[in-house]
Amino acid sequence: MNLVASALEGNRLSLARLLTQIENGTPDGRLALDALYRHTGGAHLIGVTGAPGTGKSSLVNQLARLYRNPPDGSSSRRVGVVAVDPSSPFTGGAILGDRVRMRDLAGDPGVFIRSMASRGTLGGLAATTASLALALDAAGFEIILIETVGAGQAEVDIARLAHTTLVVEAPGLGDEIQAIKAGILEIADILVVNKADRPGVENTERALRGMLLLAHPAQRPGEFHHAQSYAHAEAQSTSPDASIWLPPILRTVATEGTGVVELFQEIARHRVYLAESGEWQRRERLRLQSELDMLLQALLVSRWRQTVSAEAYQDVVDRLLQRDISPWQAVEALLDGHK
Amino acid sequence: MNLVASALEGNRLSLARLLTQIENGTPDGRLALDALYRHTGGAHLIGVTGAPGTGKSSLVNQLARLYRNPPDGSSSRRVGVVAVDPSSPFTGGAILGDRVRMRDLAGDPGVFIRSMASRGTLGGLAATTASLALALDAAGFEIILIETVGAGQAEVDIARLAHTTLVVEAPGLGDEIQAIKAGILEIADILVVNKADRPGVENTERALRGMLLLAHPAQRPGEFHHAQSYAHAEAQSTSPDASIWLPPILRTVATEGTGVVELFQEIARHRVYLAESGEWQRRERLRLQSELDMLLQALLVSRWRQTVSAEAYQDVVDRLLQRDISPWQAVEALLDGHK
Repeated sequence: MNLVASALEGNRLSLARLLTQIENGTPDGRLALDALYRHTGGAHLIGVTGAPGTGKSSLVNQLARLYRNPPDGSSSRRVGVVAVDPSSPFTGGAILGDRVRMRDLAGDPGVFIRSMASRGTLGGLAATTASLALALDAAGFEIILIETVGAGQAEVDIARLAHTTLVVEAPGLGDEIQAIKAGILEIADILVVNKADRPGVENTERALRGMLLLAHPAQRPGEFHHAQSYAHAEAQSTSPDASIWLPPILRTVATEGTGVVELFQEIARHRVYLAESGEWQRRERLRLQSELDMLLQALLVSRWRQTVSAEAYQDVVDRLLQRDISPWQAVEALLDGHK
Repeated sequence: MNLVASALEGNRLSLARLLTQIENGTPDGRLALDALYRHTGGAHLIGVTGAPGTGKSSLVNQLARLYRNPPDGSSSRRVGVVAVDPSSPFTGGAILGDRVRMRDLAGDPGVFIRSMASRGTLGGLAATTASLALALDAAGFEIILIETVGAGQAEVDIARLAHTTLVVEAPGLGDEIQAIKAGILEIADILVVNKADRPGVENTERALRGMLLLAHPAQRPGEFHHAQSYAHAEAQSTSPDASIWLPPILRTVATEGTGVVELFQEIARHRVYLAESGEWQRRERLRLQSELDMLLQALLVSRWRQTVSAEAYQDVVDRLLQRDISPWQAVEALLDGHK
C-alpha cells in the first residue's frame, strides 16, 4: 500500500490518485480507506450549502484563504475542499465551474481542492463525499470545506456529514428561495446572507429570521417580537446557556471579502460550542452512523442482487408492467419467492 | 376497502385520505396501493423541475388550466398535481408556498392538488412521490404534473418517474445556474426559459443550448456551428428521424401566460413521439423498475435491521468512533458477524 503511505507523508499526486480510486469505488480504494481510517478524526468538517447563485464558491475561496492566514493570529491550517458538482446521472460528466474559481488557491501546497465528478458509487453521493473527506482528514488537512450546490435531499444528506454547516442565502433570488430553505434550515449552524450589497438584503434576512423561528421554536421564546428590529451584531450574541446554539445570521460580500473575517470567527465560536457542549462527540457518532447506514444499504442490495437471476427479475418487472401485480407485491415476490 | 372504491368513484375526500395513508406508509396505504395499481397506466406523468426562483409553480398552474380547457379543441383532461416540497429532515414540517399559488385552481373538481409534506417513508421521497402519482392515475387523473423544487439528486430521481420531463430555467439567477443544470439536463425532454421578459434571456438560452450539445453530442452532429444563430422557432423543429427527440428550448412568461400554449403543444408532440418511437413503453419499464428497486432497497434494509440487536449495532458504531475499525470493516462486521 505504497500509495497510502505516500499520501500520508504529504505527496499530493499520491493523494489525488487515492481520491480517484475512492471516488470510483475500486477495491484498491476500499483498502486504502481501511488503511487511512485510523488516521482520521482530526479535521473540522465544514459544510457550505445553499441554492445556486448564492456565491458559495467565492465564500469557500475566502474561508480557505483565511484558514491559511488566520486573522486571529492562530497558526495556519491546512485546508481541503470537496466541491460536490451536480453531475449527470447517465454519463457522470463533470462541469468545471467551481474549480476555475478556486484557481488562485491552487498554487498553495497547504490547500487541496477536489471536485466530485460522479454521483458516487456504492452508497451514493453522500457516502462517497464522506469517504473523500475521510481521506483528506487522514492526509492531515485540518479544515475540510464541503461545498454542495443546490439544496435538495442529497445536499441535506451531505450537510449532515459536517460538524458545522453553513447555509448560504442571497438577496433577489425569487420568492421560492424561502421554501427551498425549509428543508435545510434546520441543519444550519450559521446562516450567511452573501451578496449583502444587493438590494433586498433586509428582506432576505427578515425571511430567514422568520424561518429560524419556525425551525427552532422551542429555543427562541419571545424572540419573535424583536425579530424585525434585530441588528446584525445582536444576532451573533452568544446564548447564555452554552448547551444551546442559536444559528446566527451573518452578512457577507464574498467577492470583496466583506464580513468573511466575522464568519471565520463565528465558525471558530461554533467549534468551541461543539467541544464544550459535547455536541462534537454526538455529531461524530451520528455522522459515522449515517455513513455506516449508507454503506450497509448499498451492500445489502448488491448482495441480494447476486442471489436473483436476471430472468426472474425481468419476469417480475413484466408482470408489474402488465398491472398483474403491484410494486409491493413485486417486491414480495422477489424477496420471498411467492409469486 | 371502502375508501379505495370511493376514491375510484371520484370522491375527493376519500382520495385525500388515501393519499395521506400512502404518504405515511401505513399498512392501509400499502393495501390501497395494491388495490389501486391495476387501475393505473392511463396517465401522462409530466415532471416539472428546475432551480428555485424559476417560476415552476406558475408554469404548472398555467399548464393545469390549459389541460382543463385545451387550446387545440381537444377534450378537457382531469389534472393531478403533486408538488414535492423540500421538507425538514427532522420535523417533516411543510411550507405552504406552492399550494397558495394554486388557489385559483382549487375550486375545479377536475383538478386535484397535493403537496408532499414529508420526506416520504419506505423507499424515500421518490418512491413516495411515485406512489402518490399512481393513486391519482388510478383515480382517473389523465395528466399528472409532478413539480419538484431544486435540482439535486433526489429531484433527478423524481424526474425519472415522469414520461415527459420539463426542466425550467430563468434568466438572471447567477452563473452557477449552468452547473446546477448539468445533472438534470440529460433527463430534460423540453427546456423552458421562463421569465423570458427579463434581461439576459438570450444568454440563458445560449448557455442551455451549449449544455444540450454536451448532453446530447451524438444526436446533434454539426449543430454546434449554428447554435448561436438558432431562432426560437427553429429549435422546435421536429427531427426528421421519429426515433430521435431533440429537446426543444421554449420561452415563457408564465405569470402572463406568454408561451404556455406553445409549451402545451410541445408536450403533446412529445407524447406522440413517445408513443410512435416505442419510448413510452421503454420509459414505463424503467419507471416501474426504478420504483421496484427503491422499494426493494427499503425492505431489504428494514428486514435486516430486525435481525441485528441494538447492542450489537451500537458496539460496532463505538468501535468505528474509536477508529478501531473502518466503515467498510464495520459493515462487514454487521453483515457477516466477523468482528
